[in-house]
Amino acid sequence: MSKVFKIAIDTKGADKGADEIVKGAALALEKDTRLHILLVGDGEYLSSQVASLNMPNHRVEILCAPDEVTNYDNPADAVFKKTESSMMRSLAALSEREELIGMITAGNTGALIAGALRYLSGKERVRPCLAAVLPAADGSFTCLVDTGATIDCTPSMLLHFARLGSALMRDMYGIEAPRVGLLSNGAEPTKGNKLVKEAHVLLADAEGINFVGNIEGNNALSGSCDVLVCDGFAGNQVLKVSEGMAMRMMTDIAKYAKRTGSEEIMKLFGHLMSVYDFSSLGGGIILGCEKPVIKIRGSAGADAVVSTAGMLLNMAENRAVFDKEKNKI
Amino acid sequence: MSKVFKIAIDTKGADKGADEIVKGAALALEKDTRLHILLVGDGEYLSSQVASLNMPNHRVEILCAPDEVTNYDNPADAVFKKTESSMMRSLAALSEREELIGMITAGNTGALIAGALRYLSGKERVRPCLAAVLPAADGSFTCLVDTGATIDCTPSMLLHFARLGSALMRDMYGIEAPRVGLLSNGAEPTKGNKLVKEAHVLLADAEGINFVGNIEGNNALSGSCDVLVCDGFAGNQVLKVSEGMAMRMMTDIAKYAKRTGSEEIMKLFGHLMSVYDFSSLGGGIILGCEKPVIKIRGSAGADAVVSTAGMLLNMAENRAVFDKEKNKI
Repeated sequence: MSKVFKIAIDTKGADKGADEIVKGAALALEKDTRLHILLVGDGEYLSSQVASLNMPNHRVEILCAPDEVTNYDNPADAVFKKTESSMMRSLAALSEREELIGMITAGNTGALIAGALRYLSGKERVRPCLAAVLPAADGSFTCLVDTGATIDCTPSMLLHFARLGSALMRDMYGIEAPRVGLLSNGAEPTKGNKLVKEAHVLLADAEGINFVGNIEGNNALSGSCDVLVCDGFAGNQVLKVSEGMAMRMMTDIAKYAKRTGSEEIMKLFGHLMSVYDFSSLGGGIILGCEKPVIKIRGSAGADAVVSTAGMLLNMAENRAVFDKEKNKI
Repeated sequence: MSKVFKIAIDTKGADKGADEIVKGAALALEKDTRLHILLVGDGEYLSSQVASLNMPNHRVEILCAPDEVTNYDNPADAVFKKTESSMMRSLAALSEREELIGMITAGNTGALIAGALRYLSGKERVRPCLAAVLPAADGSFTCLVDTGATIDCTPSMLLHFARLGSALMRDMYGIEAPRVGLLSNGAEPTKGNKLVKEAHVLLADAEGINFVGNIEGNNALSGSCDVLVCDGFAGNQVLKVSEGMAMRMMTDIAKYAKRTGSEEIMKLFGHLMSVYDFSSLGGGIILGCEKPVIKIRGSAGADAVVSTAGMLLNMAENRAVFDKEKNKI
């Protein structure tokens, strides 16, 4: 008998509503028959969707959650007052139910991080962070961390992100000593804001970190490091500015292709989309938890649910980074 | 008789050495016969270059400066100990000599800002900032400010940048009430780091600022604001990440064109280069000075000197933003 992998999916909190998320769940079940799903949200709605989408009953379970975390909730309120929300119920289920291997949500990032800290940080209460693994120019992958979990950071948090990101890249790609770069406004060690200058000293002195120094924004995704460390504000900018510029150029190319009717350019467009459509890459991975939690963007569609379900399946076969013993700082 | 425009060019401090800068000066003189240049740097070297490049003697003057500001000098040392450097001599000349309409340098940004504050801030000693005017997706232009002059900012500095950027866009493009956005990690007013949250309140309450709220990184250059305000660290990331991503995609397209031998794609490449080659756009403009100072990147080539000389000529015909009376905060 083949192995069973069960994941929790928070169906609320997405910009496009629950429909897209549930549609993604149905597609993910079709794509991989090893997958089982716990759908968390409005019970009545989910029951009707499971039926109308012909989802396989024996591989779907519904967990009712009457409440919803919105983008306007502050994290502490969400965690302590909205315990019946689909997000907190998903996190609680992930913590309590051994068979669950991970979770997907499109909801409020701040609330999710706070919830992960409450339900999944284990005894050490390691602060979780949000990583994005992005394709670099040289064909390798770069783990950008943090991309928005902690907006105001201390230097020791950046060191912590370096360790978590290194562990992820070691486990996902077998890189023995992942090269850690520090995002700054200049390559020289003296360049940076107060936070970056202090973090530079910590990283340079840290044992077990293969620190390669400051990396400037134009090299953020050049492949010159495996892990790029920054605070959540700066990381959010790197992620979204990259995505915005890529989408803008793709739009220009599509318009040009339409105007000229060139088949060659349509082919080029398809080729570029396979590399630069970041939305298809899945979502951010919350590191520092006992089990993987993937945050897809609020605007994510069904395809993001499918690809992140695939990521969770892959991770389930290589769980070291989510082992709290390995994550001790 | 046509009007004469004279600019100062600091020939030292460029990554590629003085040769590229001087070559750019020669090309700029060829391109616009109204242009006169004060070359600041090594006298003997410059004399020989003026001769060997056949530069028109009556439109070139040489100012000797034996010392050089390097990228390793801290700003205060550069300003107070390297008064005989080409950068400080250029700034002093700009301040003292009425006929000079502006200056170009590829040197150390921190030292330049400190020098501009010393020589060109007038009695008010307004803190200068470094703006970049970039092409937006909708065909308009976005003034990104600050892009690296002040790395650690206060909320009131961000308000100050908003005013300087607004004045520039009003004067350069005739936009009556430039829309000011604040770079953040979410559109909601509650999103941002400590600095951004406090600046949001200041900007929302400020008279004379057309504040349109937070802008996320993916919309930084979408055209949803005319002035995008951020601290120098974040602005440096927006600038360099945009540039890095654009160059990366251009490289991919060039490789694809070569592989397929497609003429259509080579044409597309040329079209995209005209929009996305940020290095050809000239440089950052230092705002808040009595006269415009343009910082081209350290790695800039001769073409950047030519295009920024053109910018200075345009600005000389519309100097309001550099009028200290208008810049009072």
